[in-house]
Formats: sequence, C-alpha cells, structure tokens
Amino acid sequence: MLLSIIVSVYSACHSFLALTVPTADVTLAPQYQLRMRAVDLIRKKRDSVEHSREEIDFLISGYTRGDIPDYQMAAWLMATWIRGLNRAETAALTESMLYSGEVVDLDRIPGKKVDKHSTGGVGDKTSLILAPIVAAGGLTVPMISGRGLGHTGGTLDKLESIPGFNVNLSLEEFISVLRECGMGLIGQTAEIAPADKKIYALRDATSTVENIGLICASIMSKKLAEGIDALVLDVKTGSGAFMKREEDAVRLAGLMVETGQRMGKKVVALITDMNQPLGRMAGHSNEIAESIDVLSGGGPADLVELSVELSAWMFFLGERTKTLEEGRQLAEKMIVSGQAKEKFKQGIRLQGGDERVIDDPRLLPQARSHADVPSQSAGFITTTNCEQLGTALAMLGGGREKKEDTIDHAVGLEFHKRIGDRVEKGERLVTIHYNSGAKLAEAQSLIGESYQIGEVAPREKPMLIHRTLGV
Amino acid sequence: MLLSIIVSVYSACHSFLALTVPTADVTLAPQYQLRMRAVDLIRKKRDSVEHSREEIDFLISGYTRGDIPDYQMAAWLMATWIRGLNRAETAALTESMLYSGEVVDLDRIPGKKVDKHSTGGVGDKTSLILAPIVAAGGLTVPMISGRGLGHTGGTLDKLESIPGFNVNLSLEEFISVLRECGMGLIGQTAEIAPADKKIYALRDATSTVENIGLICASIMSKKLAEGIDALVLDVKTGSGAFMKREEDAVRLAGLMVETGQRMGKKVVALITDMNQPLGRMAGHSNEIAESIDVLSGGGPADLVELSVELSAWMFFLGERTKTLEEGRQLAEKMIVSGQAKEKFKQGIRLQGGDERVIDDPRLLPQARSHADVPSQSAGFITTTNCEQLGTALAMLGGGREKKEDTIDHAVGLEFHKRIGDRVEKGERLVTIHYNSGAKLAEAQSLIGESYQIGEVAPREKPMLIHRTLGV
Repeated sequence: MLLSIIVSVYSACHSFLALTVPTADVTLAPQYQLRMRAVDLIRKKRDSVEHSREEIDFLISGYTRGDIPDYQMAAWLMATWIRGLNRAETAALTESMLYSGEVVDLDRIPGKKVDKHSTGGVGDKTSLILAPIVAAGGLTVPMISGRGLGHTGGTLDKLESIPGFNVNLSLEEFISVLRECGMGLIGQTAEIAPADKKIYALRDATSTVENIGLICASIMSKKLAEGIDALVLDVKTGSGAFMKREEDAVRLAGLMVETGQRMGKKVVALITDMNQPLGRMAGHSNEIAESIDVLSGGGPADLVELSVELSAWMFFLGERTKTLEEGRQLAEKMIVSGQAKEKFKQGIRLQGGDERVIDDPRLLPQARSHADVPSQSAGFITTTNCEQLGTALAMLGGGREKKEDTIDHAVGLEFHKRIGDRVEKGERLVTIHYNSGAKLAEAQSLIGESYQIGEVAPREKPMLIHRTLGV
Repeated sequence: MLLSIIVSVYSACHSFLALTVPTADVTLAPQYQLRMRAVDLIRKKRDSVEHSREEIDFLISGYTRGDIPDYQMAAWLMATWIRGLNRAETAALTESMLYSGEVVDLDRIPGKKVDKHSTGGVGDKTSLILAPIVAAGGLTVPMISGRGLGHTGGTLDKLESIPGFNVNLSLEEFISVLRECGMGLIGQTAEIAPADKKIYALRDATSTVENIGLICASIMSKKLAEGIDALVLDVKTGSGAFMKREEDAVRLAGLMVETGQRMGKKVVALITDMNQPLGRMAGHSNEIAESIDVLSGGGPADLVELSVELSAWMFFLGERTKTLEEGRQLAEKMIVSGQAKEKFKQGIRLQGGDERVIDDPRLLPQARSHADVPSQSAGFITTTNCEQLGTALAMLGGGREKKEDTIDHAVGLEFHKRIGDRVEKGERLVTIHYNSGAKLAEAQSLIGESYQIGEVAPREKPMLIHRTLGV
C-alpha cells in the first residue's frame, strides 16, 4: 500500500510544522518500511494527509479492542476535528465503526425495515409519532435511539416517562417485539457499534463532537447496524439545532446520504427548521402527551405536518407506497382510523409500559407547579433563541447538563406563541411545569430573554427547507 | 476573569466549526458562569482562543496531579500543536511546568551558575567539552541533560560509555558534586519539572513533539529549574537538526530567549549549522574520546571553534570575563593549560566513573569490527543528509529508535570528509565501528546515499549562522 508507506515517511520526518505532503511515488529506504503504528496515523491526520481504508480500520479496531489507548485516539480525534475527513474517509470510518459490532439480522421478519433519525432539537418528538404510524402502515421500524444531552431531549428519556417502559431490551427481545408489532424503541446495546459508544464518550470529554465527518460516522454506523433497508434523516438547522447554519446542515445531510448509499441503503435527508421548538411542548411527560394528541388526530400544525412528511418518506422509501403523496395519505389514514394510536398502545405494552397512558395521559408524571413567563413588550415574535429554551428546561431538571444527571420527567415547557405571532405586553409566552423552584427565577429570565419582539411580523419560514435524496 | 468566562461561552457554543471568537465584553446568563473545566479549555485552544495564565496553570497542575486524564491532555496538545501558542502563553506554560517541581537551590555555592542547551544533532558533544572548560574557568555548570532519541545522541548516554559513570545522582548528591568541582552532569530527577516529564512522554506517543511553543516550554522549564543565572542556547539548523529550516530555528531561539528573560535570566541563543555532523565522530565511546582530544588541545576545527565560542558566551554571561573575546581567550587557556582536562577527570571521578579513560580512551567500550563506506563517484561533497547519518548510526545499535531500546556504546561513525572536500571515486567517506553485522549493509547504503557529490565545490558556510541575545 502506497499510503501506508507514506505514513512511515511521515514518522521519520522531523521538519518543523511541515505541511507539504509527499504524493509522488517514492522509493523508501528500508528503515522507513515500518509496520502500521497509531502514532504515525495521528501524525498523518495532523498533517492533513488522507487516510486509507486500512488505516482507519487499524485505528478503529485497535481502539475498540483496547490496543490503542484513549490518549492516542483523543489526539487523532482532535487532529480529525481540525483537519476534517473527506467523503471516502468518512465512509471508511462509518463502516469500521459499524462492523466493530453486530448488524441486527431482521431477515426473518418479512417486508421492508425503515427508520428515521433526527439530529435533535427542542420539542422534537416525531419518533414517538412516526414509529406507530409507519408500523401501523405495514412496515417494520427498528428504532435504536439515544438519550438527551445539553439542550436537546432524547427519545429514550421521553419513553421512560411512561411507567414501566423498558428501553433496555436485549437484541433478541427487540427482534421479538418487532416481529409482533412492527415497531421497537430501544437504546444502543453492547453489540451495536461498540466503537461508536467508546469514541462518543471520548469526543464528549475532549471537545471533538461538532465535526460533520465524525457526526456522520457516529449516526450512520448505529443506524446501519439496525439492519434497515431505508433511512429518513431529519437534519435540523436553526437556533435550536446543533447545526445553526443551514450550509452546515446541508453538508452533513449530503455526507450522510452518500455514506448510506455507499452501503446500499435508500436514504433521504430533509433539512428542517429548528429556529423554534417543534410543537407546543418540550419536556418528557408532556412530549409523550403531545405525541398521543397527534396520534389522536389533534396536536399542533407544525408537528403534524412534519410527522406526516417524515412518515410519507418512510412509506415511500420502504416501497409501501408508489409515490410520496400516497405516503402522506397513508400516514393521515393511519391517524384518522386510530390504527397508529392502537399500534403505539401495543408497542408500549410489549415493552412493559403502562398502555393506559394513551387514553389517560394524566397517568404520566405530572409537575406540581406551574409558572408563566410573560412578554416584556408588545409586538410580533421575530426570533427565539431556541437552544436557550432547551437549556432553561434542562436547568429545571427536565434535561441533563452532564451524562450522570437524572431527569425529572414531569418538568416541561409549554409554548403559547410561535414566531410571527402577535403578543401583548404581559401576555404569557411560556408556561413552566416544574417541581423544584430552586432555579425557577433563572429559568424564567432565560426564557424571557429567548424571545425577540419586533414591530413587524417576520416572513413565515417553511418547516421543510431543503432535501437531499439518495435512493 | 473575562477570559475564563469566555471559555464557558465556548462550552455552550455548538455552532459548526465556528472560528469566530467573542472578544467584546459580554453579559453572561448565569448558567454560563461555570467553574474551570479541562473540556472547555480544550475547546478554546481548538478554536484558536488565547489562554490566560490561570487556565494554563489549571491544565498543567491538574495534569501533573493526575486530576486531568491523559486523553484530555492529548487532545489539548494536538489542538496546541495545530493552533500554536503565542509568546505570553508559552511563557505561562514554561512557568507552570517549571513550578510543577523544584528549582535547585544553588545559593550556598558562591559565584554564577551557567549552563548551555543544544537542540540536538549528529556528533554534537560540546556539553562534554564546555562543562570542564567553564568549571575550570571558575563558574558553576549545573547541567541536567537528556537521552538520545531517533537520529540524535544524548549527553547522558554518552557519559554512560565511561565505565561506572553515574548520571542518576539525587539532587543532594548533585549539589555536593557541583560544590566540589563546579560541574555536574545528571538526568532529569523526579523533582525537576515533573509536568514536563509526563507531557513529553505523551507528546512522543501522540505526534505532538515538533511545535516551537511546546519545545520552548519543555527545554526552558528544565533549564530554569537548574537554578542558573545565565543560559547559552545552541539552536541547530540544517539537515541533521530538528529544525531543518533556519527561520524555524530563529523563531524557536527568539521564543526561548524571550521566555528566559521574562524569568529574569541572561540568555543568548546561537543558531549554528547542522548540515553535517559536528566533528569527526558520532556514537558514544568515540564522542567521549573526541571530547578528550579537544580538551587535550587537539580535535577537529569545527568542534573546537564551536566549543570555544559557546564557552566564551558562558564566561561572558556568567560575568567571568568583561568581553566575549576575553571569554574566548579564557576558554583556550583552560584547554592549553590542561586545567579543563583535569576538571573533566575530577568530574568523572566524583560521579563514580573511571577517570583513567582521560589518559587512555581505549578503556572506553571498543567495537570489534570496522567497515568503510566508499564514495560512489569523484567530485566535491555538496551536501549530506545528516539526519540519515544519525539514523544509520541508530540502526547499528548506536542510538534508540524507541525509548525502550538499549544502546551499544561502542558503535560509532567516523567521518573522513566534510562538505566542500574533494573526494575520489572509491575513497572512503565514513568508517563504521560496529559489533553486530545484522544491519550493516543497510546502514552502509543509507550512509552512501547521504552524501551528494557534485562537480563544483559549494561555498563554505559559517558554523555560527545567527545569534539572538537577551541579557
């Protein structure tokens, strides 16, 4: 391998801050023809030299086995964060991380398996709505989800507000649930992409999270391990998203679509707006309740629109419908007929949860107290600092600042106004559902500051900003 | 601290690959006013934001204590390697590393204490010559040295070719030797800059060695811990130096001089040529023997010139002479009178070594075999790949490829020709002194390839290229 030889040249190169790269064929003296070493691969990435597939495999498998120590991986991650990964490197990394563990074998379950992944935001509970709609519509939805961190909520945490709900199924139990009802919602097991689990924890501790190549490999390795045929990606952009800038969201979306395609999957990425919370509710209990509202034919328009759109793409990519429009109709039918709601009930029951919450959401943990955040002035809401709203929620106990934090499922925010709405001075913007008043005042002021009020109503932005299709 | 607050803003900032830096005064919401955390400081350096002195202290003291794990320091080192350290950060890092341990207290020894540090090269044995000259001349030379790695040799390794010589003195023994004879040559003890010891090992394993800020802090923290009044720096540049490019050497020299000055020391840096080996000998036994030659009034001209020049600067900065020229005269006098040679003998005896080597260098380990490397063509030597000569020496057992390798002190190279010399085809360029023939052929071809022969003699380069004075 020419590239593995170039690594060795680098290991022997002491020139200062040298960024020139040997690219031509070179005849190497014998002492340079060394075995592959992590320290040389770190140097290579540091010096912006492209990695071969074999080199990435060497790093990821060595790290997963424990042969490469945390400190070498940390240095490589920082070099990678700064220098970046190209498309081929990202694909190789995704594949190495995917095959660091098992790929769920769903071949015994007939029909197409489809999933959706969102990059996260505030009030984003579409997974809870889509999974029942799409399973009710006849496809299988094997959903392996994550927990919330920082200003974003996590699907697993939300599900755990349903008394008894068990997200920690074994792969065998997961497959059995999927076979029985077509949907299953669990956390990452030890068998699924263990490299990602280990690397993610390290990225979190070394400020190497926000890099699109690393994010793409992390998401796609887990999703491709689900044994799916098709994947719908909901890439959020705006003040409440990890990718504040639309161009970053588009880049990440393109990279994930291409990576999924290379692995032979049908993938679409929708770039959607996260400049304000999705729906009226953020929190855990109350996002479950709002999801039940949507499955019951109610719920706020933005959440319904996005849920139907994402479901439609899942139906279309999963070849359940011939067109996207038919997919939308099928999604709506599953709601109107009550089949989706019944499917959610069945899914909850099969995972040990109290299915009665579907008909009586007050069985979900309820906050003892409520407090309003009034508007400081009159006018139109022009923007929200959506991330700050998520941070206020976490501060009240409805999210995690650190991984070890426990969550108060009853805590939540109810949003009364959306961007473009007229508001009077003193009119309530948000109602806080809380148990401990310790940080209430702080949260209130943070929420109040999150809303910008202007004299002119802003132009309405569409929910669906852009889409990248790779089929 | 404004800067420590900015860190926290950064920790809460998720914008993608954001390189913009908040520099204005900012009013911060309460949740951003966090305690200092390593992960935030890593993010800050990653994003090219300047560290405060307190932040660097936090990192270095936390890492030395073991509160900050290797993987976080590794990520910070890589971010630092790529983004760099400015002068204030370098000074703060040097000081933090210096005060991570003890500063040798030489107050009880009268007179000035001076030292020299070289950035390393092939055949650079001036420490072995200077220490006796300057101690004989009446100053105290407390020299804490390192070992060789890669293509360069180390003073401690060379000294250990003298039977019985002990470089592992305690600080107390070191001070006692210094008081008795004015010179002492030991390795870095546990008390001296422990942060540097720990960080250097990590840099070696994470490809974060060659950064001038990190190099400066590593060198200067150890040297300033010696309790010296003045320091002469010999910064090598050329094909056998770590800094191949003169501009890098000049930058490093300037940074070290400034850092030493900030700590109230007299410092001069000489930029000297390392485009070919210094003197005729490289290896361990034979560098000791060549040093004894110089102290006996013989030796090759380039080595004598540099040794006298560096000694002169030590005398001058140590206020032993009023001018540099007087310093040169004093150095020469110490050689001609035999006082320097007697001093070396005394130093060896006090550190447990066999002082008879001074009069009979054949008591040093001798190689069993010799082999010549002949010139492939006739002409003038235009350049040498000096690093490759050092690598060939290491390959034969006369150096370390890895830290754990043991050294064969008898192995060495004898250089018969210098740049500009006329050479006939088949005439020997180098004689190899070796014990194991295992890699002899490889080493011979490597050495042969290191010499470029041309038809025109190149212009002679001066040994002393440049100097940076900070007194």
